[in-house]
Amino acid sequence: MAPGSLVHVGEVKTKAPTISLFEYDAQTLSERTLPAKEASTLAMPTKGKLWLNVHGLHDAELVKQLGETFKLHPLTMEDILNTTQRPKIDSYDDYLFIVTRFFYYDDKRMAINSEQISLVLGKNFVLSFQERATGSFEPIRERLRSDRGHIRGLGIDYMAYALLDMVVDRYFEVLEKMGEDCENLEEVLLRKSNAKLLKNIHQLKRSSMELRRAVWPLREVINTLVRNDDKAFTDNTVLYLRDVYDHIVHFIESLESIRDMLGGMMDIYLSSISNRVNMEVRALTVVTMLFMPATLISGIFGMNFDVMPWLKHPNGFWFALGLMGCIATVMTLIFWRRQWLSRS
Amino acid sequence: MAPGSLVHVGEVKTKAPTISLFEYDAQTLSERTLPAKEASTLAMPTKGKLWLNVHGLHDAELVKQLGETFKLHPLTMEDILNTTQRPKIDSYDDYLFIVTRFFYYDDKRMAINSEQISLVLGKNFVLSFQERATGSFEPIRERLRSDRGHIRGLGIDYMAYALLDMVVDRYFEVLEKMGEDCENLEEVLLRKSNAKLLKNIHQLKRSSMELRRAVWPLREVINTLVRNDDKAFTDNTVLYLRDVYDHIVHFIESLESIRDMLGGMMDIYLSSISNRVNMEVRALTVVTMLFMPATLISGIFGMNFDVMPWLKHPNGFWFALGLMGCIATVMTLIFWRRQWLSRS
Amino acid sequence: MAPGSLVHVGEVKTKAPTISLFEYDAQTLSERTLPAKEASTLAMPTKGKLWLNVHGLHDAELVKQLGETFKLHPLTMEDILNTTQRPKIDSYDDYLFIVTRFFYYDDKRMAINSEQISLVLGKNFVLSFQERATGSFEPIRERLRSDRGHIRGLGIDYMAYALLDMVVDRYFEVLEKMGEDCENLEEVLLRKSNAKLLKNIHQLKRSSMELRRAVWPLREVINTLVRNDDKAFTDNTVLYLRDVYDHIVHFIESLESIRDMLGGMMDIYLSSISNRVNMEVRALTVVTMLFMPATLISGIFGMNFDVMPWLKHPNGFWFALGLMGCIATVMTLIFWRRQWLSRS
Amino acid sequence: MAPGSLVHVGEVKTKAPTISLFEYDAQTLSERTLPAKEASTLAMPTKGKLWLNVHGLHDAELVKQLGETFKLHPLTMEDILNTTQRPKIDSYDDYLFIVTRFFYYDDKRMAINSEQISLVLGKNFVLSFQERATGSFEPIRERLRSDRGHIRGLGIDYMAYALLDMVVDRYFEVLEKMGEDCENLEEVLLRKSNAKLLKNIHQLKRSSMELRRAVWPLREVINTLVRNDDKAFTDNTVLYLRDVYDHIVHFIESLESIRDMLGGMMDIYLSSISNRVNMEVRALTVVTMLFMPATLISGIFGMNFDVMPWLKHPNGFWFALGLMGCIATVMTLIFWRRQWLSRS
Amino acid sequence: MAPGSLVHVGEVKTKAPTISLFEYDAQTLSERTLPAKEASTLAMPTKGKLWLNVHGLHDAELVKQLGETFKLHPLTMEDILNTTQRPKIDSYDDYLFIVTRFFYYDDKRMAINSEQISLVLGKNFVLSFQERATGSFEPIRERLRSDRGHIRGLGIDYMAYALLDMVVDRYFEVLEKMGEDCENLEEVLLRKSNAKLLKNIHQLKRSSMELRRAVWPLREVINTLVRNDDKAFTDNTVLYLRDVYDHIVHFIESLESIRDMLGGMMDIYLSSISNRVNMEVRALTVVTMLFMPATLISGIFGMNFDVMPWLKHPNGFWFALGLMGCIATVMTLIFWRRQWLSRS
Repeated sequence: MAPGSLVHVGEVKTKAPTISLFEYDAQTLSERTLPAKEASTLAMPTKGKLWLNVHGLHDAELVKQLGETFKLHPLTMEDILNTTQRPKIDSYDDYLFIVTRFFYYDDKRMAINSEQISLVLGKNFVLSFQERATGSFEPIRERLRSDRGHIRGLGIDYMAYALLDMVVDRYFEVLEKMGEDCENLEEVLLRKSNAKLLKNIHQLKRSSMELRRAVWPLREVINTLVRNDDKAFTDNTVLYLRDVYDHIVHFIESLESIRDMLGGMMDIYLSSISNRVNMEVRALTVVTMLFMPATLISGIFGMNFDVMPWLKHPNGFWFALGLMGCIATVMTLIFWRRQWLSRS
Repeated sequence: MAPGSLVHVGEVKTKAPTISLFEYDAQTLSERTLPAKEASTLAMPTKGKLWLNVHGLHDAELVKQLGETFKLHPLTMEDILNTTQRPKIDSYDDYLFIVTRFFYYDDKRMAINSEQISLVLGKNFVLSFQERATGSFEPIRERLRSDRGHIRGLGIDYMAYALLDMVVDRYFEVLEKMGEDCENLEEVLLRKSNAKLLKNIHQLKRSSMELRRAVWPLREVINTLVRNDDKAFTDNTVLYLRDVYDHIVHFIESLESIRDMLGGMMDIYLSSISNRVNMEVRALTVVTMLFMPATLISGIFGMNFDVMPWLKHPNGFWFALGLMGCIATVMTLIFWRRQWLSRS
Repeated sequence: MAPGSLVHVGEVKTKAPTISLFEYDAQTLSERTLPAKEASTLAMPTKGKLWLNVHGLHDAELVKQLGETFKLHPLTMEDILNTTQRPKIDSYDDYLFIVTRFFYYDDKRMAINSEQISLVLGKNFVLSFQERATGSFEPIRERLRSDRGHIRGLGIDYMAYALLDMVVDRYFEVLEKMGEDCENLEEVLLRKSNAKLLKNIHQLKRSSMELRRAVWPLREVINTLVRNDDKAFTDNTVLYLRDVYDHIVHFIESLESIRDMLGGMMDIYLSSISNRVNMEVRALTVVTMLFMPATLISGIFGMNFDVMPWLKHPNGFWFALGLMGCIATVMTLIFWRRQWLSRS
Repeated sequence: MAPGSLVHVGEVKTKAPTISLFEYDAQTLSERTLPAKEASTLAMPTKGKLWLNVHGLHDAELVKQLGETFKLHPLTMEDILNTTQRPKIDSYDDYLFIVTRFFYYDDKRMAINSEQISLVLGKNFVLSFQERATGSFEPIRERLRSDRGHIRGLGIDYMAYALLDMVVDRYFEVLEKMGEDCENLEEVLLRKSNAKLLKNIHQLKRSSMELRRAVWPLREVINTLVRNDDKAFTDNTVLYLRDVYDHIVHFIESLESIRDMLGGMMDIYLSSISNRVNMEVRALTVVTMLFMPATLISGIFGMNFDVMPWLKHPNGFWFALGLMGCIATVMTLIFWRRQWLSRS
Repeated sequence: MAPGSLVHVGEVKTKAPTISLFEYDAQTLSERTLPAKEASTLAMPTKGKLWLNVHGLHDAELVKQLGETFKLHPLTMEDILNTTQRPKIDSYDDYLFIVTRFFYYDDKRMAINSEQISLVLGKNFVLSFQERATGSFEPIRERLRSDRGHIRGLGIDYMAYALLDMVVDRYFEVLEKMGEDCENLEEVLLRKSNAKLLKNIHQLKRSSMELRRAVWPLREVINTLVRNDDKAFTDNTVLYLRDVYDHIVHFIESLESIRDMLGGMMDIYLSSISNRVNMEVRALTVVTMLFMPATLISGIFGMNFDVMPWLKHPNGFWFALGLMGCIATVMTLIFWRRQWLSRS
């Protein structure tokens, strides 16, 4: 495939792409929802600010049309459609292109799912592209409608920040759920270890590593935004981006905690197996030591010599049993002193 | 939640926030303690220096009021109230904002607790915010009252240094207690290893990693202060900050020692389990080897053949027992030479 | 061997080197295929653009002749012929020399084979040298012939990009096959581990490390191209090179995932061995515990004492068997409660 | 404790501090030894060069007096008295302050002891402070007295270099002893591993890590001196400092070798335990396999059936014994072929 | 020992040092070999180029004399004589001083030996110092004599490059031999692991780490030469040095491959021990399970009850044997189904 070919690469196909459109300035706000086929009616805004969210990416034609309207580079369009990108920031002459990801935690498989969120920050517009449900950005829509925090009066760069902030906030939900699963697993492990737990530990480990690999480049992206070499953000918005950066670093550290925890669980699991072998060898040894001498004694008195002591004695049988009992008692006392009969 | 919303995030709720206030210059000192509701009577100091310590952060309104009085950025107020921050330094136009943490070591759980300390260093004022008891800064209050080291005559930046120095000094107490627990654990481990020790080793390991993750960013914070790009500190105070930096680096290295020690203990624990399996398999082998030949001999002389040697002999029984004894003695000698009867 | 000696170092010898030649500009295109002996008829192009691909490198004389025609440094010629180079970029006065590698995945041995691709990017020509089949660059030939994406109108630097892009795209094929093998292996491992799997895991691990070592320097090469200090590429081509760079970073991260997976499989393998020892020791213990008491009882009633209880009783035999049965039942119940009879 | 309080922190208390004083220039040399109480008679030298060595640091008053005479910053005095510092270099207006450490290797405990050496390099004086015996710098005193290498004619910075060089040279003695202990340990380990060796390996590991942590910052210190940003050293002395730097790097690498060796010994130890379990399980298996069939045969011929073969035969007993012997021989042959009777 | 003392530190003492001398320019060449005592007749060349190779370093006086003739710094002379240096480059006013090492692989001990090669590159002379046989540089002497590649016409810096290139080329011989040993070891390991192999793996690991530690600083040295801050090399020679740099990086990566391989072998070794324990425990379990029931049956029919079934029956004995056989067969079938009788 030649570079620049516009084909959707990714798993999620929604029924029909939807365009949600906010045109606003400090005073006014107009909200619209368009089907994909009306995308051709859109134009670059001449005044005010525009936030356009596309939900559903399998329609390459739509992205192409929007790309032409908002003068996007072919590579940008390709990256929007190829939803297996890692987080990155590309700076073009007229706009910043930011790729980031939403994460979802699948409780059953203890696995991480993700969805690519592409942002285009132009002079006076922000485009956001997502594959799945539009609900994710609903709180921002609410803030626009109610103008909470005077968001309409702030620049279009603040809108880009708000979207990024929303993405990063979502990460902590994933972290919380993973942390819970982790603690449950540890509790079960301390009670009774089995091979299935090992699989779970590894699954969580893999998920945490996947998350880590996805967040590190995002950290770089935000760091680039904070450095603000392109002057795409106002000084005030940079302060807020710095805040997002702090959140990501905090997130990475919490993730490290989870990985430490999983590493410790692995050690506990392995040593619990060794411990169990230990317990069983000990049980075997104890039983063997208790019964072998008695068996030998019974064998000795079962020999067919003509002359043997005790055999004729009326209580000889009980003498022999008593001898067996004595030896067993002495053995038990020795085990007791060596603490071989305790459970650990 | 929109960015900039002022809500307390954290676990510790004191009954009522208290404001403790020191206004001083080289000659004079006035000390006051205010309840939260009188915060509105405060004003930015026009001459002299001001140190204001807030103890108790669940009253967001109080922080908001102080923020307005001392012209703090909304993000600063949010960070003060969100007490799960990692150490950081944010430089604003009119002030430096420093987040750091006090650590407490919980002996019983071998765990680390912590409390956020936020500092705001303005032109002629320092604000400090803490969630728990005010006692931590008492020695500084004493120094102010007695003017030891002429602290009143030094700039407000020295006051900020004094608070940071107090925070870092506290770290060494935690380190000392962890080191003690570590050595106790090692002593117990060398006497007798059991699964509970493993849990303790892991708990200490996790605590040391948590501490490490908290101190590394603080190291960066102090390093930033020492570089003093904002010229917020006088040259003299920078010398003292360099001293704090040395302390932190020293702390980190001591922490590494503890982690090495814990790593070594883990190895010792694992090899002690293997060693025990070894000992028990050996015990089993020794017992089996001693009794099996004897049991076989008793079985042989228990066979019902018409013609068998020794059976008719008056001392045949003792011959057989003697044979058993001989074999056992030879076996014991072999074990002795192979050092299988020693304890290690 | 003196530096600069032109001798082919490498394993692959094709029958006869072939030269494939494209001379083109925005309007025209001429394609030719020459045998090695006609290389002397070639000349540096005076107008238009030239892409010359050499397939087969064992004929040092051919490379020398081309080197003289296109004014290559002796070291460049040496590097082209020594096909065990790692990826690198060397900047000479008149051209850029880029060494990169194609990778092939050998399914049977789970091993990586590779072939060196050398590129020379001059003012208006690109030379490419490969040891094996020319098929690899066929799609680019197609694009040239059909002028898809107006490739003929773009600069010669875009042609160099197109070749590099083709090389990197190939990497993902290798990755995909390795990932598949990896997942198959894991599935087998979870069903039944054996020593052969260990060998496979290690082979895959080694292949992934080999791949990693080969791709890291290529990443550096592309990064150098993106920085474009030599101004060898137009701004537009740099955008495309940045895309290649993203692909490589993505590739490296996917490779890390595979390595994590292999690391996890190693752990699972090792713990499965321990688990099996565990199971077998337990089986041994259970059997010993069930039979030893019964054997002792049979021994006791086999003793030759004159006076022994039950011996004369008509049902004595069944009493003894019953006693054996009772003890075995009690033992089984104990094992049952300790869950020693389950399979994990 | 307020910063700047002058209290001795450290373990070593000599009886009485001694001051040893060298005043010299290219032509003259005067050597004096003063008790601590005469420190007040000292003055900053106006001409010539001064080397003052203080041995014994528990007398804070003495350090204070010297500090005033030579115009040291309070923090410098504090650092001199607190002998638990890590190596560092602090640059003040009038002097350089260097903290470094002597190391001693305690053969019995395989542990590292250390002593802080503080150096102050002023315009025309060098002060050195040490806690223990003065003998360490004796060779330098000798060189001063005999003016070997024209040391008196060289600048005071060369004297500072000479002291640092002496400190670093001492490190190699420690390294040599550790290396010897390491090799002895390995030799013992290969002959016979036991749990005490594990403790020794860990003790050496810990010592080597302690040493490493102490030498890395010293490396930084010397590196700073070699960069010579303060111009405190002449170009010629910098050449010599570069030599010291090379020594430290060499030292660090040799230390790494020792750590590799210790890591390898740990592996050998662990696998030797596994090997021993292996040997013993094999011994148990061999013995069980040899005796079990024989015991069964004896049991069979001990059964009380009326009709049994061989029982009446005069050589039946020997037939049975022969059968036992045959089976044992066959078993032994099988073990022989599987190499189970060899020692590894 | 005072710094600058000229004493030979090293193990190799050749009988008598030899000086081999090449004086040449583009047209002429004069070759001489001098004994050490005639060193005083040498003088700095006034025209043409000089390459002087000293073989044998125990004669400190010779080095001192050469040092005076060619105006070497005392530290340079010290470094030449102390042949335990790590690779480094020191830049003096009049010359560059380069320390590098030849490596030899000792097949028997699987260990690395090395020899220090010191180079001094002056305006128009190169001095090379080696401890052992002069043969190593013979190919360069040949090239000088035959003027292959017009080496005589190139600058003295090219001669320094030629010597360095020769040193680095030698490294690959060591690598090749190590790689062979490594592969042989792996082959043996897969057939049969034993404790001696572990020692060999560790020895190779240690050798590879030693090599790595020696090559990394050399990489830095060559990198410094390539950067050519001193302008000691012509642009053309720098191209050749870049080639040497590529070789070293390639060498380091191949070394990493060997280390990966050794790491994998370690894992295989350890799991092979576990596997063997597994096999033996299984053998023990199988035998015990086969014989214990039969032994119990023989014991039961050996009891002395008056009334017992089968005893009077003429085929009772065979019934009992049949019962034993049946149980053993059933057991064997169970083992068969659980695949306990296979070899892995």
